[in-house]
Amino acid sequence: MTLHHPERDQIRIDSVLSALGSPLRLAVIRLLDGTGEHNCSSVLRTLSVPSKSTMTHHWRVLRESGVIRQRPAGREHLLSLRREDLDARYPGLLDAVLSAMGSDDAVCA
Amino acid sequence: MTLHHPERDQIRIDSVLSALGSPLRLAVIRLLDGTGEHNCSSVLRTLSVPSKSTMTHHWRVLRESGVIRQRPAGREHLLSLRREDLDARYPGLLDAVLSAMGSDDAVCA
Repeated sequence: MTLHHPERDQIRIDSVLSALGSPLRLAVIRLLDGTGEHNCSSVLRTLSVPSKSTMTHHWRVLRESGVIRQRPAGREHLLSLRREDLDARYPGLLDAVLSAMGSDDAVCA
Repeated sequence: MTLHHPERDQIRIDSVLSALGSPLRLAVIRLLDGTGEHNCSSVLRTLSVPSKSTMTHHWRVLRESGVIRQRPAGREHLLSLRREDLDARYPGLLDAVLSAMGSDDAVCA
């Protein structure tokens, strides 16, 4: 099965924002930022997500909106943030979102 | 009926992003930005939305996430963007989103 990824110029801001509009998916983004490829299992462990099947939907939303890249590697998938594409299309957006998560952390602490 | 609005420090980034993750709601934000209060009918006319009832859900999503303020005025509601609150909580976010819409316009043109 080929995993669909939009090209850089097919990415749309409403899909990106909708994909990011979830605490769990935001946590994934923060984890992937600046750390290259992660396999799905390690992301699940780090975020304490018990069920792999719960995440299938989330990976697809993130991938089909152009936020992450997901590639098969053996029996697993490797995930990475498409920071270069997102920064090229929407300068400042990802940094503003990541920094916004920090503001929420501060308020909730 | 009192309309619920979160206080500035109750605003959460995942709700804001989820609220903005829709072409129609993004169009509302762009329209409201920098132009003070608009009544609902004028927003609908400008965006060529035929049905008032379609929008009830969208106003609520935008209001409850802290993106817009909605206040009754006679038989209508007046809408405004909570730019000051959003800029204070999430510096650069709204500008990055508005500018991202411009990037999409350019790609789709």
